Amino acid sequence: MVASKAARIRLAAPNKLLVDFGLRRAHGAEAGLLSARASYLAGFDGSSTVLAAMEWGIPIFGTMAHSFIQVHDRESDAFEHFARSHPHALTMLIDTYDTEAAARSLVPLARKLAREGINIQAVRLDSGDLAEHARQVRSILDKGGLTGITIFASGNLDEYKLAEFIAAGAPIDGFGVGTRMNTSADRPYLDCAYKLQEYAGVARRKRSEGKATWPGRKQVYRSYGGDGLMAGDVLTTADAAQPGQPLLVPVMRNGQRLANSPALEVVRENARAELAKLPVPLRALTQAPSPYSATVAEPLRRLAAEVDKRIQSGE
Amino acid sequence: MVASKAARIRLAAPNKLLVDFGLRRAHGAEAGLLSARASYLAGFDGSSTVLAAMEWGIPIFGTMAHSFIQVHDRESDAFEHFARSHPHALTMLIDTYDTEAAARSLVPLARKLAREGINIQAVRLDSGDLAEHARQVRSILDKGGLTGITIFASGNLDEYKLAEFIAAGAPIDGFGVGTRMNTSADRPYLDCAYKLQEYAGVARRKRSEGKATWPGRKQVYRSYGGDGLMAGDVLTTADAAQPGQPLLVPVMRNGQRLANSPALEVVRENARAELAKLPVPLRALTQAPSPYSATVAEPLRRLAAEVDKRIQSGE
Repeated sequence: MVASKAARIRLAAPNKLLVDFGLRRAHGAEAGLLSARASYLAGFDGSSTVLAAMEWGIPIFGTMAHSFIQVHDRESDAFEHFARSHPHALTMLIDTYDTEAAARSLVPLARKLAREGINIQAVRLDSGDLAEHARQVRSILDKGGLTGITIFASGNLDEYKLAEFIAAGAPIDGFGVGTRMNTSADRPYLDCAYKLQEYAGVARRKRSEGKATWPGRKQVYRSYGGDGLMAGDVLTTADAAQPGQPLLVPVMRNGQRLANSPALEVVRENARAELAKLPVPLRALTQAPSPYSATVAEPLRRLAAEVDKRIQSGE
Repeated sequence: MVASKAARIRLAAPNKLLVDFGLRRAHGAEAGLLSARASYLAGFDGSSTVLAAMEWGIPIFGTMAHSFIQVHDRESDAFEHFARSHPHALTMLIDTYDTEAAARSLVPLARKLAREGINIQAVRLDSGDLAEHARQVRSILDKGGLTGITIFASGNLDEYKLAEFIAAGAPIDGFGVGTRMNTSADRPYLDCAYKLQEYAGVARRKRSEGKATWPGRKQVYRSYGGDGLMAGDVLTTADAAQPGQPLLVPVMRNGQRLANSPALEVVRENARAELAKLPVPLRALTQAPSPYSATVAEPLRRLAAEVDKRIQSGE
């Protein structure tokens, strides 16, 4: 679910730096940690969750805390102290008091630090109208000769807001995406379940109203168009081959795993390749007008009818 | 967040059996387990999460799985086998194929089991129009002399649906509430943060656009009306007493906890007593027309002005 959300964000902002920022708002520490992994495999560049680096080698991106600014009586002292203590991959958080005033104070400081070999890499905006602040800050930095400093933004972002920023041409180079991704805020749950489909060699199904399932062992065959994009899926019984590529592969037999899990980088590359095969309407953020074709083949329909007949005669 | 959701559900259904059913849809195992605790302390009767009983002594309520029905060729055989293997606290899940047909099959079975000292306590509905099925099933059971069997319902429930069932007089005695509560589906995150308010004995605050905080050590004073219900809160500095009852108490000093955590039952009783003091408009499921009064006292406003003045002169 979180990986799907992250994939939508990556599709909306294909060329931006994307960092998972959502640990603190996820539903507990476990969900927060796993969100770092889910978003990375779906195409994010990294996470601010340090444990995700230790667990899975996910790249870590940090900026600075408002509290670091606040403990100083002068914001510009905070910037200077932070630069000297974090001379590499240096991102300054500039919205604590007045975003544009902070950007202006960085111009002389950046020159001073540059003479000592310390370079400010980015500034971070975290409040207000991010697109408008980005324009103002970009202008201030460029006029100060700091064209190399990038702008990073955060604050209640999701795929819809990123698409707006990009459509408006806001000069933002990267985004920290948290709360709305890590809680999958607009779709906070997946309404799926696992159900018994075969027992003692006999296909079974439940027929609860609105919750009926298709019985027996199955396979899904996926077809591709001449352009290499996904063209449609057919669901059928495991023994009734259909045109297309079978998607289900056994991963366990007699209680034993058949292979180790692939490395996270392999999963990530696979996600990238599969997302690139999505039909264009399915890459849009809003519901596709022509939904993807997914049909049930005749052999599976026949099996369902047989199961129903057996259950009815059993009663 | 989940406790608030559970409290709303309890307020909507004060006299119903309420059981947390949401482990499988929570954002991970940790969030699912903690949801059992959060909903219990907010007034639920128990959970279907077995580990919650082992961890915190929370009462466990179980019914049966669709798969247990499905592995049998005849549903009525499944009911009988389940009754003999679970002769106590026996709840039959009757929606796998045809809810009313299953209810009818229970009438002779219940008589047969009763002769052996096994009593069916409840039936569970999990699909379709739950209120309508409950009426039909109640009628079938009553006509069969099974007036003591209660009806328990589950399936994408939340406080709004429970309020509807109760307003419609649906003969449902208890509810399993899962997905929408455990993911807090309509409010999947709390937009709160912790921020530095004092450092080295000096009050601080951030003034980021739309995210400014009140500086310094604080206290909240709550007033109550003659009816014992909450009448309003005043936020002020820690040293400026106001009328009402102070809400904040120290729990840690010099890195040491000042007391053990209260027992879960004490927390639960406290939640019950506090919910009973909510003003009537705040107990409604929809937004109260007259929001609760929460004001900022003059001493805190003065402190904020002082902090702002100091920050400005420092720049």
